Amino acid sequence: MARMVVIYKTPKDPSAFDEHYFSVHVPLAKKLPGLRGYDVSRGPIVTPTGPEPYLVATLHFDDRAAILTAFATPEGKACAADRRVLANDADVQIHLFDTAEV
Amino acid sequence: MARMVVIYKTPKDPSAFDEHYFSVHVPLAKKLPGLRGYDVSRGPIVTPTGPEPYLVATLHFDDRAAILTAFATPEGKACAADRRVLANDADVQIHLFDTAEV
Repeated sequence: MARMVVIYKTPKDPSAFDEHYFSVHVPLAKKLPGLRGYDVSRGPIVTPTGPEPYLVATLHFDDRAAILTAFATPEGKACAADRRVLANDADVQIHLFDTAEV
Repeated sequence: MARMVVIYKTPKDPSAFDEHYFSVHVPLAKKLPGLRGYDVSRGPIVTPTGPEPYLVATLHFDDRAAILTAFATPEGKACAADRRVLANDADVQIHLFDTAEV
């Protein structure tokens, strides 16, 4: 399995962010080919070693290659473009990786 | 459900980190009460908006309260102490949060 973890810093206008995130971005992201699951953090995020982010979104795929393939499609490009409406590159961390149970 | 996502920067000695992580830290973390699953990133981590971390570890629990309870136990304290052997607070991000499907 693989995950895409997207960590957003607190936006200037959280209610506008939420409105855009849930009414525009989530529907776009749910069209990504190969998406197996999608969840977001709910409530406070506990961060013992640093500043608290605003939202952690996690998208689940079969493998990392499937994530890269998804973002090369028109649906993926629309999703990435819309992410830039939500947060510029300095205000978001994005990590895509294959996972292995330990 | 809830997750604890631990993102490690590249250590000074990756092979020593790996040795300690997999032979000492994983066995300690697997003793955490309430742990439902534990996986680590495998292979390169793609990070379109910033520097590439070394390892992303994800621990799965029923809810955020269960994570906080786990880290208040002796097993949790041992795990947290051992994490400080692996990386100081400046070299690791830790996020604990409840998740909601969207």
